[in-house]
Formats: sequence, C-alpha cells, structure tokens
Amino acid sequence: MKYSIIGTGAIGGYYGALLARRGYDVHFLLRSDFEHVRQTGLIVESVTGNFRLPQVNAYSTPEDLPLCDVALVALKTTQNHQLSSILPHVVKKNGTIVVLQNGLGVEADIAAIMPNSVIIGGMCFICSNKIGPGKIAHLDYGGIRMAEYRPGNVPAGITSPMKSIAETLRSAGIDITLEKNLGEARWKKLVWNIPYNGLSVILNATTDRIMANEHALDLVRDVMREVITAAHHCGFTIDQHFADTMLNNTFSMAAYSPSMKLDIEDGRKLEIEAIYWRPILAAHAVGYDMPLARLIARQLEFIDQNSRQGHAPLK
Amino acid sequence: MKYSIIGTGAIGGYYGALLARRGYDVHFLLRSDFEHVRQTGLIVESVTGNFRLPQVNAYSTPEDLPLCDVALVALKTTQNHQLSSILPHVVKKNGTIVVLQNGLGVEADIAAIMPNSVIIGGMCFICSNKIGPGKIAHLDYGGIRMAEYRPGNVPAGITSPMKSIAETLRSAGIDITLEKNLGEARWKKLVWNIPYNGLSVILNATTDRIMANEHALDLVRDVMREVITAAHHCGFTIDQHFADTMLNNTFSMAAYSPSMKLDIEDGRKLEIEAIYWRPILAAHAVGYDMPLARLIARQLEFIDQNSRQGHAPLK
Repeated sequence: MKYSIIGTGAIGGYYGALLARRGYDVHFLLRSDFEHVRQTGLIVESVTGNFRLPQVNAYSTPEDLPLCDVALVALKTTQNHQLSSILPHVVKKNGTIVVLQNGLGVEADIAAIMPNSVIIGGMCFICSNKIGPGKIAHLDYGGIRMAEYRPGNVPAGITSPMKSIAETLRSAGIDITLEKNLGEARWKKLVWNIPYNGLSVILNATTDRIMANEHALDLVRDVMREVITAAHHCGFTIDQHFADTMLNNTFSMAAYSPSMKLDIEDGRKLEIEAIYWRPILAAHAVGYDMPLARLIARQLEFIDQNSRQGHAPLK
Repeated sequence: MKYSIIGTGAIGGYYGALLARRGYDVHFLLRSDFEHVRQTGLIVESVTGNFRLPQVNAYSTPEDLPLCDVALVALKTTQNHQLSSILPHVVKKNGTIVVLQNGLGVEADIAAIMPNSVIIGGMCFICSNKIGPGKIAHLDYGGIRMAEYRPGNVPAGITSPMKSIAETLRSAGIDITLEKNLGEARWKKLVWNIPYNGLSVILNATTDRIMANEHALDLVRDVMREVITAAHHCGFTIDQHFADTMLNNTFSMAAYSPSMKLDIEDGRKLEIEAIYWRPILAAHAVGYDMPLARLIARQLEFIDQNSRQGHAPLK
C-alpha cells in the first residue's frame, strides 16, 4: 500500500510523518519546502514526543509521484484549483482520498475530479503549525473524525474503506473517530472554525486572549449558536450543548493561533470561501440567513484583500 | 452673552474658535492642552481658510470659568461622568446646553444634572481632527443639525432657544439645520456612526478604503439598514434611502479617520457605550435585536480593552 501526502504543512506533514515513522510507504508532495525536505527530511516537535525522519520520499511535481492507494489531501482550500492537475497523478482511479481540509463542499469538488475514488472527509481536531521548512510543531490534540462522502450529502454510514484507513491511521498512533454523516461532521467542525478562525484574524488574537475577554466570548457563543442553527436548517442535528463542549475544549487549550491567523501572518490567502461563504450559501439556499458569519466573512475579505495590497492590519 | 466650550478638541475647539473669531465672548475649558493654549491660543487649519486666535480665554478647571448663558459640551462621552462636577460651574441654571456629542441618551443624562437648563442636541456632520495642542484640522463639511430635548423623547418642535442659538452659530459661519425631533435626528446620525466608527477601528482603515472594498461596502449597507430598522422600532421614521445619501456623502468625502479611529490611535477609551450599547439596548427594549451592531460593539470592546493592556491591534 502506498500513501501520498498532498500538501506537506502543519496537517499533511504531521500525519504523513506519523505514517512514515510507523513504516508505511509514504510519498510527500511539496512546493516551497521541497529542496529542504529532500535533503534533510521532516522534523516533528510534538507534545507527545519529538521525532525526526532524516529521509523521506519528497517530490516537487505530482507527475513524479507513484500512483498511490490512498491520498491525504492537506492543501489549503485556496489551492484546490490545483487538485484537478494533481489527483490523477497521485492516487489510483479507485483509490481512497482523505480530505484533511477545513470548510464545506470540498469532497464534492474532489468527486467531480475523481468520480471513481472513495472520498472520505477528515476533520482534524489538532493544534499544529508549520514552524519552518519541513518542521512541524504539534501543540495539542490530534484526532481526526472521518466520514465518507456520498453524492447529495446522503449519510454513508460506517463503510469498509473508512474502517480500513482508520486501522492504518490508528496503527500510526492517530486517534480516529468514525462518523456516519459527513455533512453533520463538517458542520460540527464549523462550530469551532467559524468563530475562532475569523476572530483570531480580525482581533489579532490567539484563542486564550479571546477566551479571556467577556465580550469576545459572548461573540463566540452567539456565532456558535448561529452555526448550529444553520446546520439544523441544512438537515443536520447538532445539540446546542456541543457549543459548550467546544468552548470548554478551547478554554483548556494552550494559547493557540488558528490556521487562518497563521495564514494572514504568513501572507497566504485566507480560506474564506470554504469556511465562510460555502456554509453561508448552503444555509441561505434553505432559507436561513447567517448574519454574524456573513459580517465576519466580509471583514475577512477586506483584511485579506488589503493585506495583500500591503495594508497589513496586524502587529 | 457668554459661551463656554466644554472640551476643546476637534469639535469644541473648531466651533468655539469660530464663535471667538466672530467676536463672541467664549470661554474654553481644557485639560492637557491648557498651558499651551493659554500661551499661544488656537489654530484652525480649515478647508474654508486657516485662522489663528493668538489669545483665548482658557481655563483648566470648571470653577475658574464664569457662569455662561450657553455651554457647548464637546467632551468625549467616555468623560461624561465628569459633567456633574463641570456643568454647574460653567452654565447658568436656566442657561442653554448644546450637546455636541455622538451617540444616544446623552441629553437625558445632562437633564438629570441640570434640570432647569434648556438642552439641545447637536449632531455635527463634520470631518475635523485635533492634530496638535490647540490645533484643529477642519477637513470637510461642518454643519450641525440641532433639536431640543424633552423628557421621554417627546419631539420638541422648533423652539425659540433653538432659533436663538442657531442665529448666533450661523452668524459665526456655521451651517445650522433645525430639527423637530431629537430622537430621530440622533438615530439619523447613528446611521453613519455605527458602521463607520467601528469598522474604521476594526479594519484599521480610513473611510475611502472602506468604500473602495466591495465586501466592506456591503457590510456598511447592511449595518445602515439594521440601524434604520432599529430606529423604526423605536418610533423614528428614517427612509431607507437615507442610507444611500450617507453612502454618497462618504464616497465624496476625502480619506477620513472617524473619531473612534483617532481615539484608538491616540490611546483614548472608545465611545462604545454611547454609539453602540445605548442604541442596541434601546432597540432591544422594544423587541428589536441589532445583531450586526452588537457584533461590532463586542469586537470594539475587545480591541478597546486589549489596546489599553498593550496589545495594540493596529499599524
């Protein structure tokens, strides 16, 4: 069995390194870090123990990778326009694609490119950052909730490809939870992502500072409530108490910069489309407005566009 | 007739200087700029022509001022807790108090302190900034819409004290519009202040950059619509087209930093209470929620508190 890692950053680099450490045949696609990783491998500084892989299979172009049985897609969603020229080279036609991305609708996009593949959404509950070329800091958590995609967002249940990939990932030390309903699992992830990703950018604050301010905390609560209500309108039942669980998890987390905060700091395009506009439009299509998410998305669009015009709002 | 200016900044300094230039007997209360203004007077750099008053009646404590016939209150609303120890010293018991402040409810607060005074709200449509001690830049506009306060927000109509003060101010070159309904006039001003003051701070942007970004512009439009709807629920009719007027005015304005943006840059407390919480609570009291204004207010509270803890979100 061969595994390809599409996007070797905070997520792909971490999980790919765990698989490679366990002895699996892993092939890493990289861009800017390619030369560095080809020469010196990957370093993971993890709360569960640091490790180094001095030699990994590194590639700079998709055409160079072998066709793999499983591809883990861990690009930023802002790069998803590249997937149509990547996936056919890095995963067998009937292979399995695990989408370790944020936001809504990415599995359907990939299904349009690879209609014969098994497509599994993976929601990563992890605090990890890429802190240098080929160097990943794993700060907290690390589990993945996985659910298989079916056209029309029909719940797939627990399928045998899910069980198979879960077994592999668990053997590499990754905590896997299997979910029957991809849409519901994706919306659950949004309950965290929609408030924290955006507010960390807009307020230029790590999660601990957001949690320490009563007004910001009220805001997070209201946004979570809106996301849960939107999910409900889209046909997915999430208990309102799930918001408390997310809040409690975030309280007990170390000071954390959500991925979008790192994106703005590093000059990357923000994942506003996948994390904000797609949920907003999905809810709108069934008659529910998300005014808070929409306001945050518009602020992010302004910040995103202006930061790339040299008007950095930060620091 | 004697006039006192309570707070000699961008607003009080500008209008007070116009009155003094016209020869009226004006008495300026200052804090930090007192010594400078006492020695060198006031400078106004105005689009309509620069002028200098080398000698003005400057005071550092309210007890030193003469009792005046008219007081113009131009403090930041965040300093309004000082008014009870200022107003009895600077205005005759039956004198006239013109409140040149932003936000809602300030006239009622002042009525509680000075129950025998005529209290007139003044909504300043002006772009002016204090750019140094005793130095004011007047960039655009300059008119004041005035309406008299009545307990319970009953419309006062056009009263004779209003006509009298309007005549004085007009003779000093100030464009005055008299309004019959203070509540309606205050809410109209909020249609501009609620979107632009907050967003200029949160997005760290002057009005021109907000207007140049389609997402920020959509956001401004939605917030204006919410304010007009809130006003409607509070019993004040503002045509939805009024938003277009405000947008067009802002399009034709020079790049402008709303007062709240200057406040955060200069380390002053933000006027969140008067401009946001009071309107939000007024609308809430009649059953209307203002989710967008509330979200913006909470972001501002976070930024306000953190900026004074040394976590500057700006620049």
